[in-house]
Amino acid sequence: MTASGNAANFNGQKPTIDPADTAMLLIDHQSGLFQIVKDIDVPQLRANAIALAKAATLLKIPVITTASVPQGPNGPLIPQIHEAAPHAQYVARRGEINAWDNPQFHAAVKATGKKTLVIAGTLTSVCLAFPSIAAVHEGYKVFAVVDASGNHSRLATDLTVARLAQAGVVPIDIMGTLSELQGSWNRPDAQEWANVYTQAMPHYQLLIESYIKAQEVANNHEVLDSQRK
Amino acid sequence: MTASGNAANFNGQKPTIDPADTAMLLIDHQSGLFQIVKDIDVPQLRANAIALAKAATLLKIPVITTASVPQGPNGPLIPQIHEAAPHAQYVARRGEINAWDNPQFHAAVKATGKKTLVIAGTLTSVCLAFPSIAAVHEGYKVFAVVDASGNHSRLATDLTVARLAQAGVVPIDIMGTLSELQGSWNRPDAQEWANVYTQAMPHYQLLIESYIKAQEVANNHEVLDSQRK
Amino acid sequence: MTASGNAANFNGQKPTIDPADTAMLLIDHQSGLFQIVKDIDVPQLRANAIALAKAATLLKIPVITTASVPQGPNGPLIPQIHEAAPHAQYVARRGEINAWDNPQFHAAVKATGKKTLVIAGTLTSVCLAFPSIAAVHEGYKVFAVVDASGNHSRLATDLTVARLAQAGVVPIDIMGTLSELQGSWNRPDAQEWANVYTQAMPHYQLLIESYIKAQEVANNHEVLDSQRK
Amino acid sequence: MTASGNAANFNGQKPTIDPADTAMLLIDHQSGLFQIVKDIDVPQLRANAIALAKAATLLKIPVITTASVPQGPNGPLIPQIHEAAPHAQYVARRGEINAWDNPQFHAAVKATGKKTLVIAGTLTSVCLAFPSIAAVHEGYKVFAVVDASGNHSRLATDLTVARLAQAGVVPIDIMGTLSELQGSWNRPDAQEWANVYTQAMPHYQLLIESYIKAQEVANNHEVLDSQRK
Amino acid sequence: MTASGNAANFNGQKPTIDPADTAMLLIDHQSGLFQIVKDIDVPQLRANAIALAKAATLLKIPVITTASVPQGPNGPLIPQIHEAAPHAQYVARRGEINAWDNPQFHAAVKATGKKTLVIAGTLTSVCLAFPSIAAVHEGYKVFAVVDASGNHSRLATDLTVARLAQAGVVPIDIMGTLSELQGSWNRPDAQEWANVYTQAMPHYQLLIESYIKAQEVANNHEVLDSQRK
Amino acid sequence: MTASGNAANFNGQKPTIDPADTAMLLIDHQSGLFQIVKDIDVPQLRANAIALAKAATLLKIPVITTASVPQGPNGPLIPQIHEAAPHAQYVARRGEINAWDNPQFHAAVKATGKKTLVIAGTLTSVCLAFPSIAAVHEGYKVFAVVDASGNHSRLATDLTVARLAQAGVVPIDIMGTLSELQGSWNRPDAQEWANVYTQAMPHYQLLIESYIKAQEVANNHEVLDSQRK
Amino acid sequence: MTASGNAANFNGQKPTIDPADTAMLLIDHQSGLFQIVKDIDVPQLRANAIALAKAATLLKIPVITTASVPQGPNGPLIPQIHEAAPHAQYVARRGEINAWDNPQFHAAVKATGKKTLVIAGTLTSVCLAFPSIAAVHEGYKVFAVVDASGNHSRLATDLTVARLAQAGVVPIDIMGTLSELQGSWNRPDAQEWANVYTQAMPHYQLLIESYIKAQEVANNHEVLDSQRK
Amino acid sequence: MTASGNAANFNGQKPTIDPADTAMLLIDHQSGLFQIVKDIDVPQLRANAIALAKAATLLKIPVITTASVPQGPNGPLIPQIHEAAPHAQYVARRGEINAWDNPQFHAAVKATGKKTLVIAGTLTSVCLAFPSIAAVHEGYKVFAVVDASGNHSRLATDLTVARLAQAGVVPIDIMGTLSELQGSWNRPDAQEWANVYTQAMPHYQLLIESYIKAQEVANNHEVLDSQRK
Repeated sequence: MTASGNAANFNGQKPTIDPADTAMLLIDHQSGLFQIVKDIDVPQLRANAIALAKAATLLKIPVITTASVPQGPNGPLIPQIHEAAPHAQYVARRGEINAWDNPQFHAAVKATGKKTLVIAGTLTSVCLAFPSIAAVHEGYKVFAVVDASGNHSRLATDLTVARLAQAGVVPIDIMGTLSELQGSWNRPDAQEWANVYTQAMPHYQLLIESYIKAQEVANNHEVLDSQRK
Repeated sequence: MTASGNAANFNGQKPTIDPADTAMLLIDHQSGLFQIVKDIDVPQLRANAIALAKAATLLKIPVITTASVPQGPNGPLIPQIHEAAPHAQYVARRGEINAWDNPQFHAAVKATGKKTLVIAGTLTSVCLAFPSIAAVHEGYKVFAVVDASGNHSRLATDLTVARLAQAGVVPIDIMGTLSELQGSWNRPDAQEWANVYTQAMPHYQLLIESYIKAQEVANNHEVLDSQRK
Repeated sequence: MTASGNAANFNGQKPTIDPADTAMLLIDHQSGLFQIVKDIDVPQLRANAIALAKAATLLKIPVITTASVPQGPNGPLIPQIHEAAPHAQYVARRGEINAWDNPQFHAAVKATGKKTLVIAGTLTSVCLAFPSIAAVHEGYKVFAVVDASGNHSRLATDLTVARLAQAGVVPIDIMGTLSELQGSWNRPDAQEWANVYTQAMPHYQLLIESYIKAQEVANNHEVLDSQRK
Repeated sequence: MTASGNAANFNGQKPTIDPADTAMLLIDHQSGLFQIVKDIDVPQLRANAIALAKAATLLKIPVITTASVPQGPNGPLIPQIHEAAPHAQYVARRGEINAWDNPQFHAAVKATGKKTLVIAGTLTSVCLAFPSIAAVHEGYKVFAVVDASGNHSRLATDLTVARLAQAGVVPIDIMGTLSELQGSWNRPDAQEWANVYTQAMPHYQLLIESYIKAQEVANNHEVLDSQRK
Repeated sequence: MTASGNAANFNGQKPTIDPADTAMLLIDHQSGLFQIVKDIDVPQLRANAIALAKAATLLKIPVITTASVPQGPNGPLIPQIHEAAPHAQYVARRGEINAWDNPQFHAAVKATGKKTLVIAGTLTSVCLAFPSIAAVHEGYKVFAVVDASGNHSRLATDLTVARLAQAGVVPIDIMGTLSELQGSWNRPDAQEWANVYTQAMPHYQLLIESYIKAQEVANNHEVLDSQRK
Repeated sequence: MTASGNAANFNGQKPTIDPADTAMLLIDHQSGLFQIVKDIDVPQLRANAIALAKAATLLKIPVITTASVPQGPNGPLIPQIHEAAPHAQYVARRGEINAWDNPQFHAAVKATGKKTLVIAGTLTSVCLAFPSIAAVHEGYKVFAVVDASGNHSRLATDLTVARLAQAGVVPIDIMGTLSELQGSWNRPDAQEWANVYTQAMPHYQLLIESYIKAQEVANNHEVLDSQRK
Repeated sequence: MTASGNAANFNGQKPTIDPADTAMLLIDHQSGLFQIVKDIDVPQLRANAIALAKAATLLKIPVITTASVPQGPNGPLIPQIHEAAPHAQYVARRGEINAWDNPQFHAAVKATGKKTLVIAGTLTSVCLAFPSIAAVHEGYKVFAVVDASGNHSRLATDLTVARLAQAGVVPIDIMGTLSELQGSWNRPDAQEWANVYTQAMPHYQLLIESYIKAQEVANNHEVLDSQRK
Repeated sequence: MTASGNAANFNGQKPTIDPADTAMLLIDHQSGLFQIVKDIDVPQLRANAIALAKAATLLKIPVITTASVPQGPNGPLIPQIHEAAPHAQYVARRGEINAWDNPQFHAAVKATGKKTLVIAGTLTSVCLAFPSIAAVHEGYKVFAVVDASGNHSRLATDLTVARLAQAGVVPIDIMGTLSELQGSWNRPDAQEWANVYTQAMPHYQLLIESYIKAQEVANNHEVLDSQRK
């Protein structure tokens, strides 16, 4: 076999994300659906979806959003996604569960001209999985960001990951996605990327807080409280 | 590789469920066997199996049920499945553990004329896995609904999912199955589908209860109790 | 110390529930608040609250219900409680978080003439705990049914149980409460009690299903499927 | 026994928090120490500590903060506490592990004139437990907010709660504390209290988002997307 | 306070088990009820109950057993208890949920002449808790062996332990009970006690298997397989 | 792709176990190594390994056992395997970690003339994985019974299952293995198979105990205790 | 009640550890018994027991150790305890399970002249609990360090903590114990205390490693790798 | 399919590690990043990474290390890796997230002349996954040691393992890696390998401690304490 393994549509290329060829689809991140999510803490899910949107903004990656009947119990799209990606295009559907089945959504994806899709959607088994499988079948390279999606049980997520991998979709997590998009810390907007990680990773925030203080102590020759007279 | 990945028998088609080509097999959902189930809460398992039966009824998908020696410790078939799918056909076996090995069961499947099978069975490792692998080997497209099945341990389920995927069976969860069968909310029986989800997803039930009340408050101009004089 | 331990207000009596001296308070079981519950599965919580209501109905124990601003995000009272206890009295509040602080609620409790209270409320830390502590302080014997209440985390529940026990409230679970109310299977309404347990305990339901079938097999001299020719 | 149970220093009063007699002590919420916390998710801990500070601000309750050698590996105080309680008084120590042992800290508490203390501190076993036990011994009524504290293991927290209850400290959670301080939704600053809960309880935030949208749909007579032509 | 703490009826004596003053009550260990048990693995529960019976046999402690309607769905008493304690007395009840309420059972306990009771019962919240609280109220010293009992949820067990401790019952585990009964390894039947532990503790069995082999290797001067030529 | 999926060496045959072509390898089930096992309870592991040996005995499947330096800290082979499979052949190694590397072991496998291997071994990552991968490479069909093996962490097991599936080994659980070997309940030794399941599945044992009692009650017209006068 | 709560033998004093009045008992930390421990990771248990020994050495607190039949399957005392506390006195027993029952052990404790005991022992339910309860009964103030002990299940630990608290023993964790012994960072041996914490708390070790590096970077004006040319 | 399955670049060879053709890459094991790790305990992660380094030293396998901006919040490389592998070569990067993108690192790997890579890196999703996928694409055989890496969540690890397997990387655990490198216990440095396992597996350490003592008892004819007069 070749090095590209079972990932679909790579045709011998390295199965990684090329930001220049990428569009991002953020599907059905709605406050009602979030109540059903059990495979990830809701604040983490919200933070991860926002982090995707911010990364897309930093890299000027096209973003398309949509919602499943937001006038009903599924609830409204969480507002932070469009706040983090002001350039995102919202496409209303007409009840299609698979966003890919909506002609306007499908056309919007095609109009980006990109052949690599980074997708997240709530519920993972449905709103992420259905468009991912459909897009692979049409020849797209698809990266499914499972921990920016949210599902009704961990078991359901495991089943969906197995189904996605079987269909040639590349399963990926939030940190893998962000870091593959960023590529290097040796870039002018490095601080903005640090902010993205800080919001998505609470323990990274702690690291930075402690790091800054430790340097201040050294630079200012502060005395330890326990050594004060 | 093609976009259809490792899912068996799709021959380049998108590896999704076509309701028009589908029969449903609900195998060995028996009260004794349910006592052994450890990978999913029993009420959720019962609800998921019933939801499958209801969806099949809404779509007039043929349903075949069977039980493993229900006169012994395995116990009777749970009655709600035939209540939810009155058109279901029950096939008694003669002790074969793999339902597929029973000639009457096999003939009943064949008689549906369908080439796509949605299967659930307790225990997952046995009653779901054996017919699924056998059906794939005979050329069927098979979707194994693991969280409508039930198994003796989570580890055993993970092993079975790996085995099923390796054999070309498509692993799937209850929400993926229901939503792929439904396709769209823009259909006359949308309310009946909402009822299916309500039963299978307790948090969706809460959403609907709260949603209806919130709209009543708005429509009736109700005053908040905390603002009453 | 005496045998009555730290349970408040028993004055040397055995610290158990006397159904003849008991009123039941079911507080704030609302569909919105249920979304916040993390210490027990919501279907189990719903079933346990209903079971309490049914037991009260069987024993003609007075039931008082109330809700916290049901016109707002907390959502409506789940309808099954009044269905299971048609004799229950609903008391609207005016924003008081502690139901005991509402004069109408307090008067309703007093009007029952009972000195033992069985209380459940969502959230456990607030809607169960506050009236329980207040009632003990007024001299009531109080049984707090924690697993018919629901809380935002298991840690919060553990803290609340410690606080309640410290205050002299008796912590109790659903099965202890139901069985202490029932007392004996040797009573005319035994079958109705079995129904209560069946709804609240899914594995008990399985036991009964299997038991009935096993007896039918014996009584009808059914042959095992695996022994059929 | 009396209704006040084992809670120390209540002398027959109801063992609840009287905001008018309360000072709040927020001890050692430092970014380094937060890395050690294992009994609660760090974002939840951060949110709970901030919620305490906000509630104190709303009620003008005196707040005293301190840190354990913030110039060393323990790291700086998280900045959000003083942002949420601008009136808080910071007291530097000289290495004393038990803040109560620091004369300035002790004097600051005494200067408030309050006899009820709401305390949170990281680590729970040390920075919360030591001052709580010391304050009870001096005659204060003490409420230890364990899920706004943070500890190195859940087992350690359980041991500490047992120790605190044994010493007459009242263990309490964040929701019990906030709601006991608030008292009623029937107050002019009700919306500000809702904001406090929204930040500390992610699922409550979802409820409010969905509630507002559901009312907008009703008020604006919006059509469901799935019913659009 | 005295050293005997809150344990009821010790009157200044050390709150430990005196085998010479002890009777053992093993209540409702039935195969149907075991299906409901969720707070301990069923094989461990079965082994622990058997270990209690064996220890009683070694020490000639009186054992009284009973069952709750074993002709119904609760199922038969597990046979191993009477096998392990052939001297045990079985007392049939007439539907009383609390065994203590059955006159024959109560008389049988009284007839032992013992004032210390070691009790285990399935379900913990009911079959263990009710007789324990009643016995304390009558002046018995009671040790409730919670992990030889079995309950419908871990939360329910925690609530029951809090209730039992509040009522003056001493909560205890299987190893504490067995070791307090045994007292010393310096006794003629030490090997029989080792067998009791081996059955109840699988990892102790491994220790003994490895220990015996290691000594055989040393005594027989066996060569390591990896050092064979 | 064909229906046989990624399972190695099936060449278009259904990827299931043919008892007539099967040898069983039980590797390094030693009391010391069992102390390291963390992915399954040790009693369950012991029972599962014994169940494999019993099934092989019922079907006269050749069994080969071996141990890794049983004279050292790894400890002796657990004796129950040879007790359950008296026909098993023990092959001593000379320190080779992969049993397949030992010429005598390899020859013993070859001498069986079977081309399908059912393998279990402690640790899963090593003693099961290494011979499984080697045997596949030599053209054997290999079924790796992961929950009759035992590993140092659940994460390690998940990694090993992924590696095994990638290498063409079929991952399988104990129930799948036993049931695929048994095939049907309609066979003369059905009762002996029931005994195998009873030992390996504690909840199945409960089912049988309750089933027998329920039939006795019906056949003997026993009166419920709760209906006795 | 007084501020000293239910802790036994404090007689109105603050229920905290006075190092000057303290002896430490480290009981049965043996390599075989450690295999049985399930309520805490073994490396953490080993580290916590060593940390106690080191703290005692820093403060010259008398330490008494003992072992339960170390010539048998229980295995030898782990050597690190005497390495960390070279001044510790080892007392051999004669098979008594409760170390307190051994006259030499009891005499050794008495000979220290201390009235406060810090005790840890494996298993918690037995080797920690029995001497703790006995010592309280003789008038000692006892602190039971549960997470430096180790038990066969978490449930058993919870039961034992409830029993200990009921008997007047003070339950405590490792960090509470170490910090109460240390008292202040403002002491000449502060660095040695930091080393004690570093060994017992892996995340504290990380904090210190990162802190030192951050200060070095500041002091040496190191350039970030990502800013190198 | 062939026996080598989906593992990339084996070309029909057995997909196992040949130590003679292997280089080891240990990437970004830094004290700050370790604070973020949630899928494995940090002490275990540290021990596993060290064990890899030691095994490489024993076999003279080339080791290349690197760190991601160690001057910033990610913190310094843990020192134990170079202590355990003094021959390791450290390569500084210039901010590239994927070490493979750094020309010096890539050249260092190539200079080893090895075609098989054993890789571990923190975070698993990034620092392990990116170079692994890149190396497979260049034709290397790659073994990714996931439990010597460390990731921000268990879900992220599961997603990464699926991605790695899909890309043809071989997922493996620490024990599989060490044992495949060692090959046999029948070698002169067997004792040094035992030391490697002892450090990485705490329960193996216990086995060895108990084994040595058991043999000493036999060899020295020690009397059991419980049999002393």
